[in-house]
Amino acid sequence: MLIATALVFIMHLGFATLEAGFVQRKNTVNILFKNTMIIAIGLLTYYVIGFGLMYPGGEGGGFFGFGGFGLSLPEGDAGAIAYADGHYTYWTDFIFQAMFAATAATIVSGAVAERVKLGPFLLFATIFVALSYPITGMWKWGGGWLNEAGFYDFAGSTLVHAVGGWGALACVILLGARRGKYTSDGIKPIPGHSMPLAATGVFLLWFGWFGFNGGSVLSADPLAVSLVFVTTSLAAAAGAVAAFIASYLLFKSHDLSMVLNGVLGGLVGITAGADLMGPGEAILIGGIAGTLIPFAVVFFDRIKIDDPVGATSVHLACGIWGTLAVGIFGAKAGWSQLLTQLYGTLAIGAFTFAFAFGLMFILKKTMGIRVSEEEEEKGLDVTEHEMHAYGESVSDQPVAAFEMAK
Amino acid sequence: MLIATALVFIMHLGFATLEAGFVQRKNTVNILFKNTMIIAIGLLTYYVIGFGLMYPGGEGGGFFGFGGFGLSLPEGDAGAIAYADGHYTYWTDFIFQAMFAATAATIVSGAVAERVKLGPFLLFATIFVALSYPITGMWKWGGGWLNEAGFYDFAGSTLVHAVGGWGALACVILLGARRGKYTSDGIKPIPGHSMPLAATGVFLLWFGWFGFNGGSVLSADPLAVSLVFVTTSLAAAAGAVAAFIASYLLFKSHDLSMVLNGVLGGLVGITAGADLMGPGEAILIGGIAGTLIPFAVVFFDRIKIDDPVGATSVHLACGIWGTLAVGIFGAKAGWSQLLTQLYGTLAIGAFTFAFAFGLMFILKKTMGIRVSEEEEEKGLDVTEHEMHAYGESVSDQPVAAFEMAK
Amino acid sequence: MLIATALVFIMHLGFATLEAGFVQRKNTVNILFKNTMIIAIGLLTYYVIGFGLMYPGGEGGGFFGFGGFGLSLPEGDAGAIAYADGHYTYWTDFIFQAMFAATAATIVSGAVAERVKLGPFLLFATIFVALSYPITGMWKWGGGWLNEAGFYDFAGSTLVHAVGGWGALACVILLGARRGKYTSDGIKPIPGHSMPLAATGVFLLWFGWFGFNGGSVLSADPLAVSLVFVTTSLAAAAGAVAAFIASYLLFKSHDLSMVLNGVLGGLVGITAGADLMGPGEAILIGGIAGTLIPFAVVFFDRIKIDDPVGATSVHLACGIWGTLAVGIFGAKAGWSQLLTQLYGTLAIGAFTFAFAFGLMFILKKTMGIRVSEEEEEKGLDVTEHEMHAYGESVSDQPVAAFEMAK
Repeated sequence: MLIATALVFIMHLGFATLEAGFVQRKNTVNILFKNTMIIAIGLLTYYVIGFGLMYPGGEGGGFFGFGGFGLSLPEGDAGAIAYADGHYTYWTDFIFQAMFAATAATIVSGAVAERVKLGPFLLFATIFVALSYPITGMWKWGGGWLNEAGFYDFAGSTLVHAVGGWGALACVILLGARRGKYTSDGIKPIPGHSMPLAATGVFLLWFGWFGFNGGSVLSADPLAVSLVFVTTSLAAAAGAVAAFIASYLLFKSHDLSMVLNGVLGGLVGITAGADLMGPGEAILIGGIAGTLIPFAVVFFDRIKIDDPVGATSVHLACGIWGTLAVGIFGAKAGWSQLLTQLYGTLAIGAFTFAFAFGLMFILKKTMGIRVSEEEEEKGLDVTEHEMHAYGESVSDQPVAAFEMAK
Repeated sequence: MLIATALVFIMHLGFATLEAGFVQRKNTVNILFKNTMIIAIGLLTYYVIGFGLMYPGGEGGGFFGFGGFGLSLPEGDAGAIAYADGHYTYWTDFIFQAMFAATAATIVSGAVAERVKLGPFLLFATIFVALSYPITGMWKWGGGWLNEAGFYDFAGSTLVHAVGGWGALACVILLGARRGKYTSDGIKPIPGHSMPLAATGVFLLWFGWFGFNGGSVLSADPLAVSLVFVTTSLAAAAGAVAAFIASYLLFKSHDLSMVLNGVLGGLVGITAGADLMGPGEAILIGGIAGTLIPFAVVFFDRIKIDDPVGATSVHLACGIWGTLAVGIFGAKAGWSQLLTQLYGTLAIGAFTFAFAFGLMFILKKTMGIRVSEEEEEKGLDVTEHEMHAYGESVSDQPVAAFEMAK
Repeated sequence: MLIATALVFIMHLGFATLEAGFVQRKNTVNILFKNTMIIAIGLLTYYVIGFGLMYPGGEGGGFFGFGGFGLSLPEGDAGAIAYADGHYTYWTDFIFQAMFAATAATIVSGAVAERVKLGPFLLFATIFVALSYPITGMWKWGGGWLNEAGFYDFAGSTLVHAVGGWGALACVILLGARRGKYTSDGIKPIPGHSMPLAATGVFLLWFGWFGFNGGSVLSADPLAVSLVFVTTSLAAAAGAVAAFIASYLLFKSHDLSMVLNGVLGGLVGITAGADLMGPGEAILIGGIAGTLIPFAVVFFDRIKIDDPVGATSVHLACGIWGTLAVGIFGAKAGWSQLLTQLYGTLAIGAFTFAFAFGLMFILKKTMGIRVSEEEEEKGLDVTEHEMHAYGESVSDQPVAAFEMAK
């Protein structure tokens, strides 16, 4: 579990490099700053309030509960060890869950990149992680009403990924597209500034996912954990191959960003049922998720949802798919389960979307959430941080005068 | 074992960044694309056919066997746990081995970089991982004839690294050197585009090697695993220092790429006998491997084997050295063992070289394996992927017109 | 413990990328070369002499002792297992400690970057790791006189980090500032060349710190290790947030490098007492460490200690703070403990500073420690290594003539 915690932590580096790679050079410092702050804020708010909201204890079955601020050892050291029948300690449980919590906000940060104001976004992230994520998380993992209803989400296709995706969707709707993305001449691609950074991010996320899914077994049962490693890996692999084939058939291209998002789509897709599937089912689920990726990217572009890193395609579309797949494949498949999965997905989606939309709406009306046209043009690195991401990469060339003139 | 699996996975990021760093900027997307696809294809083909070929079960001692397509739990869950006397489960065994399998093809991808056609290469990689790697792997690890003969290869100096190296050699011979490398004016260096990426790759490979060698103990025997950590680390360190000294004496230079390949050479060299050596012997083996590196690089350049990342020097030369070293140093040293090691090395080398050469030859005659002169000049990122690795790094400068004109 | 060893290893990649990101582009190969060599040299010298100096065995309580060169299994395999009451093997102990040893020299390498001569620096690093680090390390962890005196340093706020920081301070004083840093017009910032590299380094260091602090429990006691994970994470998070707030109040800026160093400051601060603190105390300690960062950076700049990566602020200032904090917060708090902490800090600081100053002074008088003005201007990559870090990033542009002309 503790090793899994460390692996989940490294997913935050994965998100940071993935998102940095997919944004323009002029907004790189900004995205790194946001992602560093989000994990810090996420851990602190989860300590202060999140853990108490998500695991309120008591009877269970509810819509809302609160176990108190901060952490308190259940009956001292002995209680902390006996916690969870000795499978893991109270501290382990907290830190593993805390590493998850910030993920939802990190997903949002990619989607709103390159034009969101720093201060209001950090405020949004803080409140979203402190309140919205743990409330819906409690519904299932804290023993709440969806758990009673039989909803299944092993490691968070819905509770983590779709929650992040719904938050991203709400924010992008209120924020609008980047300038110059959707023009009268059609959709103009705005390529990311570093494919090696983006690819590094995807490999690190896959690496961390072994902790994300493997640790969610919540014990060291070797058969269960090893099966989860197999299904997770095969789904990711199938996602890559399927996204490759689908994007080749659709666009006649060998688009690296599609393959990378295919890996992530496969991982998000298998997350809800990683412990219920056999290897063949994992390949099917990952393959369908990977196939979804290019279609989702085109779909969101058509409806002018401008998402620089593809977070809605990966985390929302494939998160919903993975949650529904629990009712279609594997040990729990069946109409009744499928309906429950649909029901849970919609309930959590509706709450999260409404929460994120309302919160961002208030921030928009009060602080403003979007930088000025001029700031967007110049890039957030210079306007928000007075730094360049690549200090000398321009100025040590003969054209340094350009840089000096700024 | 499962943690070792995750560590071996991260080696694929190590290979991706190492190879990306050592190629030219204009071929960066291409190498990342190939390495992402290879791990995906490798996992899937190993699931479909490779595991069955490598571990056919039955009597043992053979040249070829096949245990069937896909995975099937031996006698259900109970059998999966009892598998391997409870040291690890059936799923663990599969996923650990599957992570290894793709390594051989990844080694080839570095050597053929910057001029191989994408489609034929992916076809080569698929068949090489599906058939060639598991067949020779079975000879030793699957209980085949080399195992019976007493051949020893702890974690794959020959079975993984030299196999990749022989495949690379065969492909490079058929493919030819990059244009402009061997000119009438002598050998022209074509420097890689990012030393930070390359160095990151080497550190990640070292990190992953703890899983590669540590996991190959195939149990959690703490004495054996901890000794393997010590020998692996000391061999890598000695490889770095020896390559530094050797390349300084040869070229009067402080060449970072030599030191980085010295680390890898030390790691490849110790891999065959990591559990048989004491610390002093590990330092000797790693030191000799590191010393080999600059000589091997010069040798392959002399015979016009153009290998942009030094894969043949690292994986072939040091893989052979490490395999032979089992007969020279450590617990199994002796003339008889040395001859067996030589014999096994040659047998696996001959099979692998012939297989790779034959396969690539067929692809050359049918699909063609090399891009056109114009494509090589422009770079594979633009011609195969219609992308730049560093979206804006050119166009956001005053000379953006250059980019526009394309 | 072995997993912790692998995690501590990856900290060396973290240091390499952090320091590479914070130096100018023209010195990138040089810093990567130094950091690769330091880990290699560190492991070998710790094998040859360091481990024997740090763990001399015998009565304990002394100032100096030596257990002999190299490693020798205590009473064979059985002794190696029984070592440490079976909590970990003799090999495990060696390799875990060896990974720590090189850290101190790596900290120095960041501070002296961009103007130190390669050869003398590697000589300094070798001797510093071989003698200075293990001698002061023995004082506490080897059962020496500070251990007898009740000094507490769980995982090395002083023994590793402040030792590196004192070494850095001594070297920077002898070396002087980079040209153009402190001018008659005031202090001129010399920005690093890659914020993504620097940020990657900080995340990897945090990741590795789970092994650094978690492994220092020296057993797999789940309650103790899990508490250490919680305190380590919360201190890092508090360090980031506090550095953000403090640097915003001081400079009205959102400076990414301050936040990144805030994370590291929090981690260094909690290291001495990670097992003694509750979550709230960890947040306080990390928060104070993060607040210290911008003040320390300004302070060292005022007294013209030019430290390109902020190593003295992070490792020296926060290392001292963390050591003292053991006397202020947590299970051992009290005036007596605080005085002992102060005493130990000063004793180790005095020895280390004197050792490093003396050694570097001799090197300065004999070999010279600083490159020429012309070499500093051109950059160490070209003058020491005849390489560019980014092979083509200049030459594949229309302005390639610039590169050719060199």
